Amino acid sequence: MCSGDPTMYERYWQQMGEKSTVVIPGWKFISYFSDVNNLCWFLEPEFANAVVRLHDFVGNAVTKDRHIIVGSGSSQLFQAALYALSQPNNDSEPINVVSAAPYYSSYLPIIELVKSGLYKWGGDARFFKPDKPYIELVTSPNNPDGYSRRAVVNQSQLGMLIHDFAYYWPQYIAITSRADHDLMLFTVSKSTGHAGSRLGWAIVKNREVAKKMTDFVVLNTIGVSKESQIRAAKILQSIIDSHKDTKVEAFFEHTFDLMAARWKKLRDVINKSEIFTLPKYSPETCSFSGRTFATQPAFAWVKCKGEEVEDCGSFLRNHGIISRSGTHFGESGKYVRISVVPQDRVFEQFVGRLSTIG
Amino acid sequence: MCSGDPTMYERYWQQMGEKSTVVIPGWKFISYFSDVNNLCWFLEPEFANAVVRLHDFVGNAVTKDRHIIVGSGSSQLFQAALYALSQPNNDSEPINVVSAAPYYSSYLPIIELVKSGLYKWGGDARFFKPDKPYIELVTSPNNPDGYSRRAVVNQSQLGMLIHDFAYYWPQYIAITSRADHDLMLFTVSKSTGHAGSRLGWAIVKNREVAKKMTDFVVLNTIGVSKESQIRAAKILQSIIDSHKDTKVEAFFEHTFDLMAARWKKLRDVINKSEIFTLPKYSPETCSFSGRTFATQPAFAWVKCKGEEVEDCGSFLRNHGIISRSGTHFGESGKYVRISVVPQDRVFEQFVGRLSTIG
Repeated sequence: MCSGDPTMYERYWQQMGEKSTVVIPGWKFISYFSDVNNLCWFLEPEFANAVVRLHDFVGNAVTKDRHIIVGSGSSQLFQAALYALSQPNNDSEPINVVSAAPYYSSYLPIIELVKSGLYKWGGDARFFKPDKPYIELVTSPNNPDGYSRRAVVNQSQLGMLIHDFAYYWPQYIAITSRADHDLMLFTVSKSTGHAGSRLGWAIVKNREVAKKMTDFVVLNTIGVSKESQIRAAKILQSIIDSHKDTKVEAFFEHTFDLMAARWKKLRDVINKSEIFTLPKYSPETCSFSGRTFATQPAFAWVKCKGEEVEDCGSFLRNHGIISRSGTHFGESGKYVRISVVPQDRVFEQFVGRLSTIG
Repeated sequence: MCSGDPTMYERYWQQMGEKSTVVIPGWKFISYFSDVNNLCWFLEPEFANAVVRLHDFVGNAVTKDRHIIVGSGSSQLFQAALYALSQPNNDSEPINVVSAAPYYSSYLPIIELVKSGLYKWGGDARFFKPDKPYIELVTSPNNPDGYSRRAVVNQSQLGMLIHDFAYYWPQYIAITSRADHDLMLFTVSKSTGHAGSRLGWAIVKNREVAKKMTDFVVLNTIGVSKESQIRAAKILQSIIDSHKDTKVEAFFEHTFDLMAARWKKLRDVINKSEIFTLPKYSPETCSFSGRTFATQPAFAWVKCKGEEVEDCGSFLRNHGIISRSGTHFGESGKYVRISVVPQDRVFEQFVGRLSTIG
């Protein structure tokens, strides 16, 4: 549960049976190339088309006249974006990359991975005062705390933004507008649940930025698994189809209901507790489903309130619950992040154990 | 032909038909994890087993008591190796990475990609005089010139070696021993021809190095496409099976014959030419096939001899042949690299055009 492995999705795809099965003959996808006429020449047209259709269907992002870049997960695209935005950097100093705490715990180790001279971690965006170009990471809804976010550094003429929209899907949060930022990241891991495919995509306005991101992926991994792209194309299309076929359960209905049921259980337990609190989200109306609901994130951002518990992670571990301490997210150890998207059995065990703590 | 896209292999896999087809249901490979008990927890056991069986069958590498790390192509594993070998680096200077010219043209841009503070390009290994730890890249048979190679920097107590064995397979070169170095890289792109899968593996002796390489792949892409791994497992196994089933053409026989026929054509044309020369390789006996033959590399390393042609790449382009200039490989522009593994039609066109130059 520490990792956010989205195995909750397994059951839905089991129910779908052969509708989402792919068959790949041995002679297919030999070549490095998918489409020599595309700037992103390793992007399978079938996958690109499915991405555009899904965004059109859900209404969560603008894709018209944008470049789509495929990556080995959105982690790789995040690094491609850092590379693209941090050069040409005429300054001899690496460019600062900032994000408001609590921020996704992998940003910092990824940024510092090989001690790049192009970019460096610049800390909590809330306290950052830029005097030269910088990059701000905006994750919305945010990992770990689930809140909707905007950029917080008020220096639009110096700032370049990377919007991480891994969780901007209608099972988690009300879709309120088609996102239309310069550089937006998405991933199949948290939209369809296929984390094992290591597949993400970026939607990019500027051609030069898209070109440099492509260059990064070429040197880092010479493109992206065709098998993952072909399978994801099928999976994305079968999501759209599931909403048009009355004989099968619609994907975003099934997953919304599952998240709603899990959050109800979790809130019921936490509300009875004298120790824990959860963030409160304001209900909003979702343009996709028409429902009005409060965010039901993939992670619970739990706080141990009161003076007694300084290290919420250790406290929970002593009660058999694995979590990730708030310290990894630039926050205090009074907070922990716990996954709400594991298999049923694991989730039930977590809530069961939580309810015994009191 | 510039890129070395191994589309030559398409025809073999078409002939194999359904024997190498994979079927992947939508509910499979949801998780990030493949095997939580393995140091490399994102390595599919089925793929790892197929890798071991293929090496045992071909006899080209020791795998017993070694760590296998899977990567999104051997490019990613090359970066993982640089990361693992360059730290902890108590020196404030990045560690030097060297390779003897002519060297694979992507090494330098990959090393310089994000201006790492851990490692930097140290130039041609033949002229490198180390006074502190360094990394030497040994590609054997070498890309671009096809020669068998050993480390050339004579400082074994300071040097750490990365052996790139992308082409150490019996369709290209005589297998003369089971390679048994500290860190060896392999890839499906040049062994089976499946470049689009972006899949490679490293065989690593030291547990700490294997652990750090795994850490790199986790932060870079959170593991490696399960679809690519599952498909490659099937492809590798079907190669072994093809040598045991008299009703199908054996993979390394088919591909050896194809390479032999192409090299014969190519040498015939070059021998008649007054302009071009090719490297000469000494015949050796292959422990896998029992054949005695001279290396027939995936690339032709062509030299424009004489004084007239200084820029062999431009000269060939004017005759409709696309090549990559020797300057990319740390050599003079009198050399070019040309792929010998494209589709039949492209190879025939190349040889046809070459024969008209004279």
